[in-house]
Amino acid sequence: MEFSFLTMGTASAHPTANRYPSAHVLTVRERLFLIDCGEGTQMQLRKYGVSFAKIDNIFISHLHGDHVFGLFGLLSTISLGGRTADLHIYAPGGFSKMLDFFMEQFGEGLSYKIEFHPIKCTEPVLVFDSRQVEVYAFPLVHRVETYGYLFKEKMPQRNVHKHLIEAHNLSLYEIARLKEGSDIIRKDTFTDDDGSEVEYDQVLKNEDLTYLPYQPRSFAYCTDTKPFKRLSNWIKGVDMIYHDSTYTSEFEDLAKKRFHSTSKGAACCAKEAEAGKLILGHFSKRYKSLDQMLQEAQEVFPNTLLANEGTKFEVELKK
Amino acid sequence: MEFSFLTMGTASAHPTANRYPSAHVLTVRERLFLIDCGEGTQMQLRKYGVSFAKIDNIFISHLHGDHVFGLFGLLSTISLGGRTADLHIYAPGGFSKMLDFFMEQFGEGLSYKIEFHPIKCTEPVLVFDSRQVEVYAFPLVHRVETYGYLFKEKMPQRNVHKHLIEAHNLSLYEIARLKEGSDIIRKDTFTDDDGSEVEYDQVLKNEDLTYLPYQPRSFAYCTDTKPFKRLSNWIKGVDMIYHDSTYTSEFEDLAKKRFHSTSKGAACCAKEAEAGKLILGHFSKRYKSLDQMLQEAQEVFPNTLLANEGTKFEVELKK
Repeated sequence: MEFSFLTMGTASAHPTANRYPSAHVLTVRERLFLIDCGEGTQMQLRKYGVSFAKIDNIFISHLHGDHVFGLFGLLSTISLGGRTADLHIYAPGGFSKMLDFFMEQFGEGLSYKIEFHPIKCTEPVLVFDSRQVEVYAFPLVHRVETYGYLFKEKMPQRNVHKHLIEAHNLSLYEIARLKEGSDIIRKDTFTDDDGSEVEYDQVLKNEDLTYLPYQPRSFAYCTDTKPFKRLSNWIKGVDMIYHDSTYTSEFEDLAKKRFHSTSKGAACCAKEAEAGKLILGHFSKRYKSLDQMLQEAQEVFPNTLLANEGTKFEVELKK
Repeated sequence: MEFSFLTMGTASAHPTANRYPSAHVLTVRERLFLIDCGEGTQMQLRKYGVSFAKIDNIFISHLHGDHVFGLFGLLSTISLGGRTADLHIYAPGGFSKMLDFFMEQFGEGLSYKIEFHPIKCTEPVLVFDSRQVEVYAFPLVHRVETYGYLFKEKMPQRNVHKHLIEAHNLSLYEIARLKEGSDIIRKDTFTDDDGSEVEYDQVLKNEDLTYLPYQPRSFAYCTDTKPFKRLSNWIKGVDMIYHDSTYTSEFEDLAKKRFHSTSKGAACCAKEAEAGKLILGHFSKRYKSLDQMLQEAQEVFPNTLLANEGTKFEVELKK
């Protein structure tokens, strides 16, 4: 029942020897979602032991090079591996030009089909829906068309308290309805004062008989963006946020000018969203130490962590 | 007076966690030549401390992804660094489409000009010529149009033996001519048997008065290719070869089919070319150990070495 976020690239536009361009893997149970695909992603996936075969869906935030320049290599190598299943890419519409170029120049004999899902929205929309996971895209505020993504586990079936199954002599049919969330209504009778039999509905309330086996978990990917008010509402109550944290407060003006965030800006978003934890990333190359970056965020939102190449952040199951 | 070849990517099409796609730096004194530019090149350059600013010329062998997918990222990052000097790229003509796409999609505000030099030849041609270095392109035999490159230090000016300057009372003009390689011809006279003065040409032969301060060095880049006879003639006497060595002999048929070489094929080329040393690279991902690869080559050409990420191979100055 894993729900984890592996950061493989935490650099901003200017990668360094240690910080790679944006690339991350969100694991929801058995499903792997690749989020952004900067240069070197395929080598990072190998390095951290991520199976290419398990990636069926790639989500791209925007079409700046540091978020997409790893795609051509990854798509090529996946084909060398002989994949046959469709691969789905979610990205702003402009990606179709990149895809056309790739297919024309490098796509000869590609072993699988690429299904492109252009994203276009001004508020959250459902863009992916499976049995266990749904993904919403929402607009961010950057220099070019950019989207964030909210990944949500679906509400699990409710469990019925075992001792109440016996106490109420619940049938298999009734148990199935209870698991779906319905109340149970039984026709029953009682003897009235005048001795007549009166029929009535006996209601067994779902909330009295069942419980959620766990709380569904959620994760929001919010980079690149400058802070803006609506964002925290769109991701209200999210368990974990990965947020643009290009600069410290000292460079707030620069952050505004370049449509990026400071770590404090990211922390304010996490606080307003009442998030569980905040992961900072997309660091400017000017920082050798990220201590100040972290401190400034933690002053606003204590449960803040720094992303790092190869670190996996878990959201644990809450019963 | 450095003359060295730094290998930063020794994988074939399928990179691994440790082996990156093709990318190398040849240093000839102060000049740096980037040869091929697979995905991750810019991070490898940073890792091995190579200054982006010193790269003015990039040579691309062919347009397979594992030799070019690092270009977009590198070109972008160089621009972020504020370069203003022209950058020269030498590649097969098809590269113009890649460059057009890059400029259209990612080239807005590029801080410098890219000068593309399309290569087209059926035998060695001079494609780069500076005061100290010349580069020849020559065709290789691969599945697509592919070129190798021969880098040659130019012949240095000759030095005049100091003790002979005095002995012959050489003038500054004569010393300059000797350094250029000319003989010195002095008008002189002698007294004939009949007492008459006869004029004659006194010849001071260049080879008697001068010496080469060092032997010019050379390097040949030969990947991707299957072995073919003319190649060793084209690079005859070269000091160092980097050669396609995708497979061991066991997979010779596969090598032929895919227009690649075995390490033995590479060694035969080095032997026939009477090369100084051979560097093997472009290894198939199937090899965890390269011991057999090396052994099979050394049986044919003993001075063979394995390329590795971050290894620098020197050609020392020979007096």
